[in-house]
Amino acid sequence: MSRIPDSQSARSRTVIERVSPAVDAGRFEAKAIVGDRVRVEAYVFGDGHDKIAAALHYRYRGGKRPAAWKETVMQPHANDRFTAEFIPDRVGPWEFRIEGWVDHFETLRYSIRKKSDAGVESHLDQLELATLLRRAAENTDDGAELFTRSAEILEQKTDTTEAVKRALDDGLVDPFHRYGPRDHATVTDRTYPVWVDREIARFAAWYELFPRSTAPDGKRHGTFADVEGRLAYVADLGFDIVYLPPIHPIGRVNRKGRNNTLDPKPEDTGSPWAIGSDEGGHTSVHPQLGTLDDFDHLVKATHDHGLEIALDIAFQCAPDHPWVSEHPDWFHIRPDGSIQYAENPPKKYQDIYPLNFESEDWWGLWQALRDVFFFWMDHGVRIFRVDNPHTKAFPFWEWCIAELKSRDPNVILLSEAFTRPNVMYRLGKLGFTLGYTYFTWRNTAAEMRSYVEELVSDSVRWAFRPSFWPNTPDILHADLQVGGRPAFIARYVLASTLSANYGIYGPAFELQEHVPREPGSEEYLHSEKYQIRKWEFDAPHSLAWLLRRMNAIRREHPALMSNENTHFHDVDNPQLLCYSKSTLDAEGSPEDVMLMVVNFDPHHTQSGWVEFSAASFGLPAEQPIFLTDLLTGERYTWREAWNFVMLDPGTLPVHILSVEISGTKSGT
Amino acid sequence: MSRIPDSQSARSRTVIERVSPAVDAGRFEAKAIVGDRVRVEAYVFGDGHDKIAAALHYRYRGGKRPAAWKETVMQPHANDRFTAEFIPDRVGPWEFRIEGWVDHFETLRYSIRKKSDAGVESHLDQLELATLLRRAAENTDDGAELFTRSAEILEQKTDTTEAVKRALDDGLVDPFHRYGPRDHATVTDRTYPVWVDREIARFAAWYELFPRSTAPDGKRHGTFADVEGRLAYVADLGFDIVYLPPIHPIGRVNRKGRNNTLDPKPEDTGSPWAIGSDEGGHTSVHPQLGTLDDFDHLVKATHDHGLEIALDIAFQCAPDHPWVSEHPDWFHIRPDGSIQYAENPPKKYQDIYPLNFESEDWWGLWQALRDVFFFWMDHGVRIFRVDNPHTKAFPFWEWCIAELKSRDPNVILLSEAFTRPNVMYRLGKLGFTLGYTYFTWRNTAAEMRSYVEELVSDSVRWAFRPSFWPNTPDILHADLQVGGRPAFIARYVLASTLSANYGIYGPAFELQEHVPREPGSEEYLHSEKYQIRKWEFDAPHSLAWLLRRMNAIRREHPALMSNENTHFHDVDNPQLLCYSKSTLDAEGSPEDVMLMVVNFDPHHTQSGWVEFSAASFGLPAEQPIFLTDLLTGERYTWREAWNFVMLDPGTLPVHILSVEISGTKSGT
Repeated sequence: MSRIPDSQSARSRTVIERVSPAVDAGRFEAKAIVGDRVRVEAYVFGDGHDKIAAALHYRYRGGKRPAAWKETVMQPHANDRFTAEFIPDRVGPWEFRIEGWVDHFETLRYSIRKKSDAGVESHLDQLELATLLRRAAENTDDGAELFTRSAEILEQKTDTTEAVKRALDDGLVDPFHRYGPRDHATVTDRTYPVWVDREIARFAAWYELFPRSTAPDGKRHGTFADVEGRLAYVADLGFDIVYLPPIHPIGRVNRKGRNNTLDPKPEDTGSPWAIGSDEGGHTSVHPQLGTLDDFDHLVKATHDHGLEIALDIAFQCAPDHPWVSEHPDWFHIRPDGSIQYAENPPKKYQDIYPLNFESEDWWGLWQALRDVFFFWMDHGVRIFRVDNPHTKAFPFWEWCIAELKSRDPNVILLSEAFTRPNVMYRLGKLGFTLGYTYFTWRNTAAEMRSYVEELVSDSVRWAFRPSFWPNTPDILHADLQVGGRPAFIARYVLASTLSANYGIYGPAFELQEHVPREPGSEEYLHSEKYQIRKWEFDAPHSLAWLLRRMNAIRREHPALMSNENTHFHDVDNPQLLCYSKSTLDAEGSPEDVMLMVVNFDPHHTQSGWVEFSAASFGLPAEQPIFLTDLLTGERYTWREAWNFVMLDPGTLPVHILSVEISGTKSGT
Repeated sequence: MSRIPDSQSARSRTVIERVSPAVDAGRFEAKAIVGDRVRVEAYVFGDGHDKIAAALHYRYRGGKRPAAWKETVMQPHANDRFTAEFIPDRVGPWEFRIEGWVDHFETLRYSIRKKSDAGVESHLDQLELATLLRRAAENTDDGAELFTRSAEILEQKTDTTEAVKRALDDGLVDPFHRYGPRDHATVTDRTYPVWVDREIARFAAWYELFPRSTAPDGKRHGTFADVEGRLAYVADLGFDIVYLPPIHPIGRVNRKGRNNTLDPKPEDTGSPWAIGSDEGGHTSVHPQLGTLDDFDHLVKATHDHGLEIALDIAFQCAPDHPWVSEHPDWFHIRPDGSIQYAENPPKKYQDIYPLNFESEDWWGLWQALRDVFFFWMDHGVRIFRVDNPHTKAFPFWEWCIAELKSRDPNVILLSEAFTRPNVMYRLGKLGFTLGYTYFTWRNTAAEMRSYVEELVSDSVRWAFRPSFWPNTPDILHADLQVGGRPAFIARYVLASTLSANYGIYGPAFELQEHVPREPGSEEYLHSEKYQIRKWEFDAPHSLAWLLRRMNAIRREHPALMSNENTHFHDVDNPQLLCYSKSTLDAEGSPEDVMLMVVNFDPHHTQSGWVEFSAASFGLPAEQPIFLTDLLTGERYTWREAWNFVMLDPGTLPVHILSVEISGTKSGT
């Protein structure tokens, strides 16, 4: 005959499906922020018509041994959906699971209530309820009295009214949930991991600058000390993170000249991404920048300015990198004994040797790469921007990032992968805190809307946290080349309001550097990647005022500190994009509501009608809504449901509108 | 230091995501039909820019030991998507898995091609390709010559043209795919199960009839022999399955009278779903129907008519069912020692005792229930309609259905669960072949469209196979009560063309029985559930002609044999629903195209314009399309893109249009 099934699973009466957040069904960690409410959802149901109860169990899972589970009741909604929230109170690894069971307690109470309403007696139901209460009493000392006394009332037949009243007393609910039996309960057969980052992982403004160009007179190579001299400027603009391109010795073999030429002059500095020379590799400092001590001093100075430093980690080697001679087996050796350089056939990049993750000594390579991070962590760095992570093996990243976060959960890694969406999202799943995006190439209002909607969708948001960059040293988009000041303003406002995490490559950005190396190129002419530049920080056309103002607005408005709260509004002009973000207070009322309108046309005034449903913000529909433009101070009055906007790129192509809440909340 | 990771997974360079079909990520079997092309899809990608290859492995997994894997190449599409198909050639359990690897062979060929196009030599690439070919040669005897000779040509430097030509020779592709090395390949870490049913699981018309009403004169209780007398009628109408309500002894304790009354007369027959009396239980036959031998004779006669029999399995007991005294522990005993009857508080159903799946003797209960199926299988039954499966424990069904299919994979189970979608779909996941649906309660064109779109969506179709029923003995929808003949025709056409699997409760349906027990009820007046009825099969108003014609059309048109090929067409009148179904030949050209239009308004002529894009069927857009109404013989000519339709319920509220393909295919 048949083998008898496992009793516990065979007798389980509930099913738990579609748990969220669950990245690839729980294979990877979902991303959360310390102090946030993490909303957990699942569909829990049983056979038959009995009531169902569910609980969320959650805990911090770092530390030597697992913490005890904490439990919170899940709230039921229509069609078997249950939700609950938990607030992780520390950075690091967390996990949750869900328990569901047939709620005989509420099933009996329902039956007693229905019968009472119909004037039908329910003594047998009461006796069964009493049995449950007596079982609950056995599970507690201090609460036993309530259960026992209630059971006695339910068991007597003399006062039916009192018995029904006690059965339906909601004072029993919470104690019973805590101590009552949960026969034949189901617990999810796995736990769901959540990685909890610090706030700066979600809400931060990055400022990228080339140390080589920080000398005040611009005539010599900048140093770490010169970078210190720029920190006050960056801090004054309201940025959070100063991000430096690679600071390591630059290869001399096949070094690139200015404008990416192949015939460098002796004084040419080369690309910081061509890492390594006889002066050292990934754990050395480019001598022209200073010493490791100077770097340590810079890290301290950065903190003193209220900033954090981010380093660029680019795992590739110049031909004269020490690893090439010490570990030739970490590279791909060609049949003629040469080491393979980077190629995009038929193009050749002979200044760069990629690492070979198919190396027989992969384990030695993995450890060396991990140790590069460890080295800079030992020098106080906790934020890394990783160059082209998608050209390194996925299993390496999963292992390496776990190593880093295990050493310090405050580590943050920004993935620079401009490639297919599956690959970008995979890197997020493997542990990258943040990723660059296609923001730069979403150049119409419709494209931008659909892209942001994808990023905040449930299938992406838990795995991939975006950072929006209007420019980088590699990407000078055509929009900025031809759009002038209005394009710079519009792209900056889009980045800093559509994504809680954004960055710019400065001072090229605020000085509106916009000339490409040649027509059709996204490379800068006289790119800092290949030479020292002198920047006129105080030029009158600088957009420093906008950066300062927007960073201040972002800090004053919680609505701009996350992405999932983005709502797009229909506009009848495809050149205009309108979106709002809002936060709710504990009662679900709007607390902070921001509404942005951006003109995507840098050349012409555009106007149109914007859909605005006050009711969707919990505001009264019949009353006017007052908005204040935080850049101009102008005030507007809007009414349900369509409102006129007009934006002249010659003055400002954007509205940053704060929606007045206080007056409307009280109904005045 | 760190523990060294598992070498195989650490060195794996590809990722396989979003495998389909995969019900709950492979936890449950996906549903397929023998002989079908099962389309498998996955996203396969690697780090870096190398080419990726993928293969599908599949096999029958029944039998004593697993069969060998068969392999087929997966075709690459945009954004890392790969697809392949396999055709299961026998009923039963199958499984597949996916393998992905970095395709150094195609990566090198790509490099050689690009360099050749640019006039750049590629000798090192050729040498590496030669190495790969020599490794392939080691894996085969009969194909070694091709690889070895090609390697020699690639290794020589004298004739560059010949070397490049050989490298790019597509004759190498298939042999290399078969014998070439697959270093650092990834195989999905689980296999994905597929259950393969016979054709009748998908494409079948069910006819439900009450044996009690089959006596020719209608004056006595019908018998199995009388049922045999009705088989010619059912077969002539073109049905595939004759389904009988429970055939077991009917309880006498608390028996219901006519029209579900509580004061039965002695001659009242009671409900066949109140199962069990001193005459026996679920493995006995109601004496008034005949004997087990008579039943066996009926099963044979059914097959002789080209039909299959389906039995109703209703796991519940009348108070006088033998199990109640033999196994009181299989029921819920109340505090006063009584057995709990069914309730929907405050309503009581004292003629029915539900089984208690929380019984301590759950294992004895499970086996007894499974043995009920086995008993009827021993009597030749392979199709079961299961009454209210959602009120029995889910783990029981998963175990029980596996037992039944393991005994005979030809078993088919139709779930009668009218409950929340999660529960209905879960029963499909647990192994139910088919499920009743909400079809009956989708009464506007818009509701019907969105419901069918949900059923054929990827998240539902692999788990849940629908059966559409315009009526059942329990459900006489208001539409049929008030809509008259047009409503019966429209609902029948919808069921039989929107769902490859459908059924009716006859002859109530074709005779348009439409009077409810009382206003607002979905119960029939004088329901056969509680009494014997005499039916006038030959009544002139019978819709037998429609049933016969539609079943013939379904058999002549492969387009109507599945659901996933359903496409809805926009119509500018919300009372009209238009949809088409089509099959494609091996070249992807349309083979059979059917287009249906249904007027949901039984009282008024409705007309409107229907969107019809010939191009979406692979037909030339500029040419007229010819359609023939298979019910009326009328012919229509349609042109891209909007066409006028008008349906008068007084004549026929439907179009069943066959789209002429042959002429257009050849372009004439």
